[in-house]
Amino acid sequence: MKALVYHGPQRRTWEEVPEPELKDPEDVIVGVDAVTLCGTDLHILGGDVATAEPGRVLGHEAVGTVQETGPGVRTLHVGDRVLISCISACGRCRYCRQSRYGQCLGGGGWVLGNRIDGTQAERVRVPFADTSTYALPEALSDEPALLLADILPTSYEVGIRNGCVSPGDTVVIVGAGPVGLAAVATARLLSPACIVVIDPAAPRRAAAGRLGADVLLASADEAVERVAELAGGLGADVTVEAVGRPETFDLCVRLTRPGGHVANIGVHGAPAALHLESIWDRNLTITTGLVDTYSTPTLLTMVESGQLDLSALVTHRFGLEEMQEAYDAFSHPADTGALKVALFNTR
Amino acid sequence: MKALVYHGPQRRTWEEVPEPELKDPEDVIVGVDAVTLCGTDLHILGGDVATAEPGRVLGHEAVGTVQETGPGVRTLHVGDRVLISCISACGRCRYCRQSRYGQCLGGGGWVLGNRIDGTQAERVRVPFADTSTYALPEALSDEPALLLADILPTSYEVGIRNGCVSPGDTVVIVGAGPVGLAAVATARLLSPACIVVIDPAAPRRAAAGRLGADVLLASADEAVERVAELAGGLGADVTVEAVGRPETFDLCVRLTRPGGHVANIGVHGAPAALHLESIWDRNLTITTGLVDTYSTPTLLTMVESGQLDLSALVTHRFGLEEMQEAYDAFSHPADTGALKVALFNTR
Amino acid sequence: MKALVYHGPQRRTWEEVPEPELKDPEDVIVGVDAVTLCGTDLHILGGDVATAEPGRVLGHEAVGTVQETGPGVRTLHVGDRVLISCISACGRCRYCRQSRYGQCLGGGGWVLGNRIDGTQAERVRVPFADTSTYALPEALSDEPALLLADILPTSYEVGIRNGCVSPGDTVVIVGAGPVGLAAVATARLLSPACIVVIDPAAPRRAAAGRLGADVLLASADEAVERVAELAGGLGADVTVEAVGRPETFDLCVRLTRPGGHVANIGVHGAPAALHLESIWDRNLTITTGLVDTYSTPTLLTMVESGQLDLSALVTHRFGLEEMQEAYDAFSHPADTGALKVALFNTR
Amino acid sequence: MKALVYHGPQRRTWEEVPEPELKDPEDVIVGVDAVTLCGTDLHILGGDVATAEPGRVLGHEAVGTVQETGPGVRTLHVGDRVLISCISACGRCRYCRQSRYGQCLGGGGWVLGNRIDGTQAERVRVPFADTSTYALPEALSDEPALLLADILPTSYEVGIRNGCVSPGDTVVIVGAGPVGLAAVATARLLSPACIVVIDPAAPRRAAAGRLGADVLLASADEAVERVAELAGGLGADVTVEAVGRPETFDLCVRLTRPGGHVANIGVHGAPAALHLESIWDRNLTITTGLVDTYSTPTLLTMVESGQLDLSALVTHRFGLEEMQEAYDAFSHPADTGALKVALFNTR
Repeated sequence: MKALVYHGPQRRTWEEVPEPELKDPEDVIVGVDAVTLCGTDLHILGGDVATAEPGRVLGHEAVGTVQETGPGVRTLHVGDRVLISCISACGRCRYCRQSRYGQCLGGGGWVLGNRIDGTQAERVRVPFADTSTYALPEALSDEPALLLADILPTSYEVGIRNGCVSPGDTVVIVGAGPVGLAAVATARLLSPACIVVIDPAAPRRAAAGRLGADVLLASADEAVERVAELAGGLGADVTVEAVGRPETFDLCVRLTRPGGHVANIGVHGAPAALHLESIWDRNLTITTGLVDTYSTPTLLTMVESGQLDLSALVTHRFGLEEMQEAYDAFSHPADTGALKVALFNTR
Repeated sequence: MKALVYHGPQRRTWEEVPEPELKDPEDVIVGVDAVTLCGTDLHILGGDVATAEPGRVLGHEAVGTVQETGPGVRTLHVGDRVLISCISACGRCRYCRQSRYGQCLGGGGWVLGNRIDGTQAERVRVPFADTSTYALPEALSDEPALLLADILPTSYEVGIRNGCVSPGDTVVIVGAGPVGLAAVATARLLSPACIVVIDPAAPRRAAAGRLGADVLLASADEAVERVAELAGGLGADVTVEAVGRPETFDLCVRLTRPGGHVANIGVHGAPAALHLESIWDRNLTITTGLVDTYSTPTLLTMVESGQLDLSALVTHRFGLEEMQEAYDAFSHPADTGALKVALFNTR
Repeated sequence: MKALVYHGPQRRTWEEVPEPELKDPEDVIVGVDAVTLCGTDLHILGGDVATAEPGRVLGHEAVGTVQETGPGVRTLHVGDRVLISCISACGRCRYCRQSRYGQCLGGGGWVLGNRIDGTQAERVRVPFADTSTYALPEALSDEPALLLADILPTSYEVGIRNGCVSPGDTVVIVGAGPVGLAAVATARLLSPACIVVIDPAAPRRAAAGRLGADVLLASADEAVERVAELAGGLGADVTVEAVGRPETFDLCVRLTRPGGHVANIGVHGAPAALHLESIWDRNLTITTGLVDTYSTPTLLTMVESGQLDLSALVTHRFGLEEMQEAYDAFSHPADTGALKVALFNTR
Repeated sequence: MKALVYHGPQRRTWEEVPEPELKDPEDVIVGVDAVTLCGTDLHILGGDVATAEPGRVLGHEAVGTVQETGPGVRTLHVGDRVLISCISACGRCRYCRQSRYGQCLGGGGWVLGNRIDGTQAERVRVPFADTSTYALPEALSDEPALLLADILPTSYEVGIRNGCVSPGDTVVIVGAGPVGLAAVATARLLSPACIVVIDPAAPRRAAAGRLGADVLLASADEAVERVAELAGGLGADVTVEAVGRPETFDLCVRLTRPGGHVANIGVHGAPAALHLESIWDRNLTITTGLVDTYSTPTLLTMVESGQLDLSALVTHRFGLEEMQEAYDAFSHPADTGALKVALFNTR
């Protein structure tokens, strides 16, 4: 079959690879119907993710059809249409028993397209299939379903829920890439009074506005002044870091009021300066995290019912065999305006 | 009357100052019976606290007797014996209405010995007296009561409660000065399985052991290895920073398991490096804060009943007029072995 | 001045009474601009509330203008336009220090129109004025502001927040009187997937539909079947009791899924049967409560911005001197279709 | 093999039954080394539990050795010594994914000795073995381990944790049978200021005292007065119902202060009167529940380290073949003084 293989920093090819096979009784083989690319894939291609070794098939988000099931799989059957979650879960370890699937110690966590071959392929082996996939209702088509594999639960759990967004809050989201935009949409579920989005790219700010952001700002300097003004001089109740750079993290901390929350979603490659001399007495709560996917079933229902509509997020569509073109478009958003790209297996 | 006056970095004198007077209907004047010194006072003398201006009477912890009450004071009367809390609270502002007295916007918060004259004096004016003092039962003597003014609620709220210490946890406390030692004692209220204390000073480690710490370590290097070992390779459930230096904060972050908590109590004068590249995916929660004193009534009852015994913390006792000697002893703990010093007005 | 006086069960008169006077330094006298009636007032007239004695001026919800202030009042001034909250708060007692104003032990709690004379009058004395009233922005007119005195924070805190309503939930609200309807509106702030309202009166169901309820049911029997169906056979995530009768409380318990919440808002006059034999093993959480008004400032901002629009709730408007007619209309909703009635002082 | 079989109300026999066999890939067969009896077994024998049908082998608490494993079992091996939990968990359903194992929809929950054959036998089939058993460290002997199968996590989760016991609280435990006594021990982990135990049986009160209860009361009348006195006239912060009768549940509600918690552990066979007319405005939280066993690993560590010592709870010891005598002793505690009885397979 064909797959997108990582061959070391900046090197990727769409090439013939061996078919995946069942290795464990709880594995399934899924035929990929639709797949998307993630900013984290670009991090891997940048050489930032040591656990992803050359030779790895990338991808951790997909929708597909079960083609084969191991003997220990209980809830899935050949022909089932499933969402493949970015997080796999053994269901038995200390963290899984506490619903903290993102930190699974039993062979799960974020493994697809990282420690094992991923979803940017015609077929993929999914471990611990019962607790790592979600049955999709017929009424929910592939494209909106794709967003449930990672960015919707990630933005909601790691950004909005960890940040304790509440009705009436002033919420600042720094970064309007796909996950930041998903944070705008999921923040609205909690009825904040005001969502401020900060991003230097005008098209991304415009997309944030379409998803419900109230105030759109281009620069950090502007932000410090406006946020203080909006929030009675005190700062934001919640700030969400959706970029992954030291300066955007620091901006989040500066924008947060005493007693407020800083929720980091960004994937970081370098340390940030934490100005404890300014915040030691400000009762801040700072959280980091990988998604646990506890919210995936709920969000799935909301996407199906139309309560949550992120269709604006998918800007480019390709055939599966156009994988390289899709990567090209996704890698240069300033030129292409790409947010999320979706690839469909049309055979 | 006599008081300890800050005259700029490194300059303090015990000198004659004007008597305090009622300025606001809710003020009381309290005659100081017992008072203590705080590491934060040394920070002021180090020139680190911009809000404390030269000419200020220092001190934010005391036990005393009400000598005069403003017409708006409802629950205190002349002759009442009270604990003066490090935190004053207007009781009316947004934060006070949410029980977050430490962030009071109405003229309270940490003001005593900082923005207004403090308790290291024969008499002190206490604003918002009804919500900034606590009646003391006769059976509770001055010395144990003193510790309720700051370090007991601070260690409990900002360290143990913010850190979400739970039965069975592995808790690491970095720094065994007075507030770190109080954290050992208050951590025990939640029955952790193991309390590890890290401090280079042997006498402080010994004091931690007497207060109930299970493992006593001298160095950061030793800590990384031992904590991993104690906690099944994962790290501590909760780490408490009770020093206030970049390297000890960083040590706390490194020692914490995925899903764990870092609770900062330390007063910091410089930024720390936050290694987001290591923790972005580890589901950490980092908290900072000033005490809100919501726990003071409860802790007071526990000290009175003997459930909480921190008598080992007071190592030196002085007369009030020996203020300078008390500061000398407290400023050189390596020589004097001082933890908390208590001064009593013997007149 | 004129006021509505309770003279024992079923007896009320709009009569001349003495002017209210300042009794305590923290009192204000407020000239009533607008006032509303509450189902609880009818309970008093039914003789159900022992603390409300004959001779009492009723009413605990109003908007007015400060006419006189005691010397201990700090944040209000003559001429200020204020919301009078149903809950007064001393700000100093154990419960007030924990933001639990509804349980105030210092002379507050629900006292207006109950233990002391209330707001259905030309003027009213409000105790502990700083913590018992809220400044109103000019842009917010009297009628929507009135709903912030009781039913909006009550439905939100005691129903929606105590019930832990979360995005995606199935929420059942039993009773579509004013507070049940306010619960529909405030539930929506948390984006439940489905709001079911049960009420035998067709006009009230219609009002619920206009406020955003998704499913409208007339009878308990119908409810048991439909709720199970809607919620995958398990029952509702949250049920809100907004009637105050044993049978509606029992219905709520029966409709709730294992692990779900029953939030009681209803004012009850008789015990209900709690079927512990059916629920001992179902992990239910049942809450009762009086509003604490911690959410009033936030809700006020939302009403002002239009985020929360309950204008449909006010069905009848009167002049203040038409108090008896207003009571007549409000007491017979089946005939008049009354939900909330508003009375305005037009002089 | 031999097993204790339920043959309808009041009829039990220790008789020869067929050997259990693996039915599902995730089953294990465990040889029972030690087993105990539960008050719930007596409820079944009383005919109160409809799901337990005649012919059923009773028992849901045991320690044993794995003798056979299904092909889908991953973490257990023949020869492993395990704790068999009263709760089985499929690990895949909606509730299991939220760590709410007690409400498992996939074939688990409380099934052993209820819907399927249980542990009062020489051997037992345990379904979903990976998530329904716990490996036992060698240092932990059978007798203390037995208490971890049910009463320790039940009292802790359903009583102490659901009741939100906090340091300094006044906690009332109604009923000093085995689970009530375990609640005394686990309440102490949270350092309440005072634990009051109410039970008419003097030996049970004495046992409560040995486990750390501070105040021992015999009657409800005495309780109302004493608890008010102990808790400043307000009532208990937390009450725990550990009996299962309408009148003890009502007593718990009456003894709880405004804002307090009533945590029901008792197995009830009849409705209780809930006096909503007294509590609708008191901000009570009432919880019910089956244990989820999330705390079992933590409690196991605490029992192993000696931090939690419930050895006083086991009053009678038998050989496995003396099952009928054990039931006789356990069924007549007033005569025998039995709390927990332990049976050991000595072959």
